[in-house]
Amino acid sequence: MAMKSFVEVDADSHFPLENLPFGVFKPSGEELPRPGVAIGNFVLDLSVITSAGHFNGQNLNNSDCFLQPSLNKFLAMGRPAWKEARSTVQKLLSADEPTLRDNASLREKAILPMNEVQMLLPTVIGDYTDFFSSLHHAKNCGTIFRGPENPIVPQWFHLPIAYHGRASSIVVSGTDIIRPRGQGHPAPNSPPYFGPSKKLDFELEMAAVVGPGNKLGESVDVNDAADHIFGLVLMNDWSARDIQAWEYVPLGPFLGKSFGTTISPWIVTLDALEPFACDAPKQEPHPLPYLSEKTSKNYDISLEVRIKPDGHKDSSVVTKSNFNHLYWTLTQQLAHHTINGCNLRPGDLLGTGTISGPEPESYGCLLELSWNGQKPVSLNGTTRKFLEDGDEVTITGFCKGNGFKVGFGACSGKVVPQL
Amino acid sequence: MAMKSFVEVDADSHFPLENLPFGVFKPSGEELPRPGVAIGNFVLDLSVITSAGHFNGQNLNNSDCFLQPSLNKFLAMGRPAWKEARSTVQKLLSADEPTLRDNASLREKAILPMNEVQMLLPTVIGDYTDFFSSLHHAKNCGTIFRGPENPIVPQWFHLPIAYHGRASSIVVSGTDIIRPRGQGHPAPNSPPYFGPSKKLDFELEMAAVVGPGNKLGESVDVNDAADHIFGLVLMNDWSARDIQAWEYVPLGPFLGKSFGTTISPWIVTLDALEPFACDAPKQEPHPLPYLSEKTSKNYDISLEVRIKPDGHKDSSVVTKSNFNHLYWTLTQQLAHHTINGCNLRPGDLLGTGTISGPEPESYGCLLELSWNGQKPVSLNGTTRKFLEDGDEVTITGFCKGNGFKVGFGACSGKVVPQL
Repeated sequence: MAMKSFVEVDADSHFPLENLPFGVFKPSGEELPRPGVAIGNFVLDLSVITSAGHFNGQNLNNSDCFLQPSLNKFLAMGRPAWKEARSTVQKLLSADEPTLRDNASLREKAILPMNEVQMLLPTVIGDYTDFFSSLHHAKNCGTIFRGPENPIVPQWFHLPIAYHGRASSIVVSGTDIIRPRGQGHPAPNSPPYFGPSKKLDFELEMAAVVGPGNKLGESVDVNDAADHIFGLVLMNDWSARDIQAWEYVPLGPFLGKSFGTTISPWIVTLDALEPFACDAPKQEPHPLPYLSEKTSKNYDISLEVRIKPDGHKDSSVVTKSNFNHLYWTLTQQLAHHTINGCNLRPGDLLGTGTISGPEPESYGCLLELSWNGQKPVSLNGTTRKFLEDGDEVTITGFCKGNGFKVGFGACSGKVVPQL
Repeated sequence: MAMKSFVEVDADSHFPLENLPFGVFKPSGEELPRPGVAIGNFVLDLSVITSAGHFNGQNLNNSDCFLQPSLNKFLAMGRPAWKEARSTVQKLLSADEPTLRDNASLREKAILPMNEVQMLLPTVIGDYTDFFSSLHHAKNCGTIFRGPENPIVPQWFHLPIAYHGRASSIVVSGTDIIRPRGQGHPAPNSPPYFGPSKKLDFELEMAAVVGPGNKLGESVDVNDAADHIFGLVLMNDWSARDIQAWEYVPLGPFLGKSFGTTISPWIVTLDALEPFACDAPKQEPHPLPYLSEKTSKNYDISLEVRIKPDGHKDSSVVTKSNFNHLYWTLTQQLAHHTINGCNLRPGDLLGTGTISGPEPESYGCLLELSWNGQKPVSLNGTTRKFLEDGDEVTITGFCKGNGFKVGFGACSGKVVPQL
C-alpha cells in the first residue's frame, strides 16, 4: 500500500513519498539555484528546511550541503548522509507528522508548485561516460553498420565497452536541441558533403550519477560499487547518424554526439529503486574476477519514448523498453571504469548506452526502429525515418509499486533548425 | 637580439622576457594557489602585482582575474586582456623599468625562486579532447594495428579525427603515473587476461588551452579560431597499448588512456609563439569550406623525449620531433570541434595527438619507435620495447630565437607500480 503524505499526490504521480528524488531548481523570480525534492506536483526546498534546522541527524546537522547551487557536495557525503536526508524528508512530508504540516509559514516557504519553478542540471558534471551495455542494441547496430556475419565484437562479452562523452553539452530536459551540422558520406566513392544532419536520432538511455569518487590510481571493488552511485536519471543521447558513421573509425563517436545530451532533472535514488531490483541477465562467458559480483542486479523500470511532431496535438509512442534489458550492470560499469585507476568524481555521469529490448517494438533509437531508414516508423498519420525539425522527443520511465509509481518524470527536447 | 630583464635569465633558459608563460602555483608554506608568470628561474606572482595596482590598463584595471586559484577567469577575457597582461608584465620585468626593479619590498614579495614553489594545473579543465592530427602517426598506427594495405581511413584526410578524453585524470608535470591494470588479449583465439599493462607507452603531444568559449549551438569560424586559443602546453598522453587494442572497437580509446595524462605547468601564449609561426603542410584533397583557412599556420617547436630508467644517472633521448609535422592545424581542430554546435569552455584542453615526424627517429611513441615491440629502443646500455616501472619520461620543447629560446619547460612523469 502507498505511503501517505499531507501533500496531495495522485495515484498516477511519479513522485509519491516512496520516491523523493533530488534535483536543483530556481523558484520563479529568484536567482539562486538550490536543491529540492519532488513530492507530487510540488517541490520541497531543501535550503529552507536546512535553514529551519530540520536536518538535524548526525550526518547533516550543521552541513551546508543543501545551501549549494548543485548537489555535488551532498553526493560526495555518501550513503549514510543520503539515507538520513531521505528519512528526514520522508518523515517531514508524511501525513501524521505535524512539524511541516502544521507550520503554515514554513510550509508556504518550503513547498512550491512544480510548475512555478525552473529545473536546472542537478549536478556539475566533471566527466560524462557512455557505456554500450544493451546486447540487443549492440547486435542491431553491428548488423546495420558492419553486416550480419559478426555484428558484435568478441570483447563486448568480456567488458562493458564505453567511450568518453562530452560534458559541456549536457542540458536539462526542456532545452531545445539545435540540429547539428557536419560531414556525411553517403556512398563509398563519393566525396563527403557538408550540411545539417540528415539522420538525427534519439537514444533511449538512463545514466547513473556518481556519489563519492575514488582517488586516481585506486579502483572500486565491484561489490562496493553501489555505494558510489547516488541514483539514476533518464537520458537522451541525441545522435547524428550520418556524422557518426563517417567520423567514428578508429577513435569512436565525437561530433555525432557532442552537440547535445538531455537528462531528466530529478535523480531517483538507488534507495527508492531498491524494491524494484531484479536479477541481471546471466553472463556467458563468466566475467573476469574483477567484474564478478556477489549479486548482479538490474531494476524493473518501464521506459517509453514518444514523439510529437510540430503542430500535432498528440504525441505517439515509438518504443517501449525496460532498464532490465541491460547486460552489464551499473556496478560492473563503475568497477570497470576504475579498474585502470581512473578517478571518478561526485556528479560524474555514467550513461548505460541505448536500452533496446529483444523485440522490434522495444528498440531504443530510430536507427534500429527504422532499420537505418529502410522501414519508416508510423506516427499518428505521418512517418519518420529520422527526426525532423519541430519533433519533440519525450522519454519517460517508472517502476510500478503496489498502488503507487516510483517514476523519473520526463526527459524531453525539441529539435530546432540552426538559425 | 634578446630582450633584457633585471631578473637574471640564462641564454639557455626557456623563460626569457620574450616568452612570459602563464601558470598557477603555491609558494612554499602557503595554501592558496595563484597565477604566475615564469621569468628565468623565477616566478612572478600576479596576485601580488594585482594587489599593488600595477595591472592598470583598460581590460585588467580592477579585475580579480589574478586573485583566482586558476587561470579560467583570465582565459575567458580574451585576447585584448591577454595582450595587456603580457605587455604590462614585459614592461615591469624589463631592465630599464624601475617600478619593480627599484622597489625591494615589492620585488621580494612578487618574484619567487621557481624551485621554492609548487606548480599546479593551470586551469580547471571542463572537457579534454584529443585529436589525431599527425599523418605519420596515423599511418604508423594504422600499419601496426590493421596492416600496410590501407593504414589510413579515407575520412582522415577530410576532417581532423578526434575523441573525447578523460578530464579528471589530467595531472601536472612531476606527478607519478601508476601503471594501470586492465584486460589484454594477446592472441586471436585465447581468452583475455587481466593484470598490470604489459605495453605501457608515452605519447609526445602538445595541447591548446581554450580561451573564450562558444555557446551551445553556435560554431567558431576557422578564421576566428585563433582568438579562442590562449596558448599551448606539452602533453604526455600515457597509453596502455594492450588495454587499448582490446577495448577500442567500435567506440574508441577508453581505459587504455584514462589512467593519466600529464601536462606541463606553463602555458606559452600564441603571442609568444607568433614569431615562430610557419606554413602548415599542403592539404590534398582541399578541405571543405568550413575548414579552409586564409592562412594555415603551424609553429616551429623542437620537441624531444627522454627516458631515465630507475637508478640511472642519465636520461637518453628516444625521439626528436617538431610541432610543424601536424597535418591539421590548431585552428582547424577548434573550428571542426564546434561545427556541430558543441560548446567549448575556457580552460578546455585540445590535444594534438601524437606528433610523429617522417623519419623513424622522430616517431612520437614507443609503439612506433619499437614497432609494437619488434625493435627494442636502445637507452644508454639497456633497451625498451615499452615502459618499465621506475622509468621517468620527460618531454621538452622550445622555439629557437636569435640569442634566446621561447620554451615550454618540461612535462615529466615517472611510472610506478600499483601498490
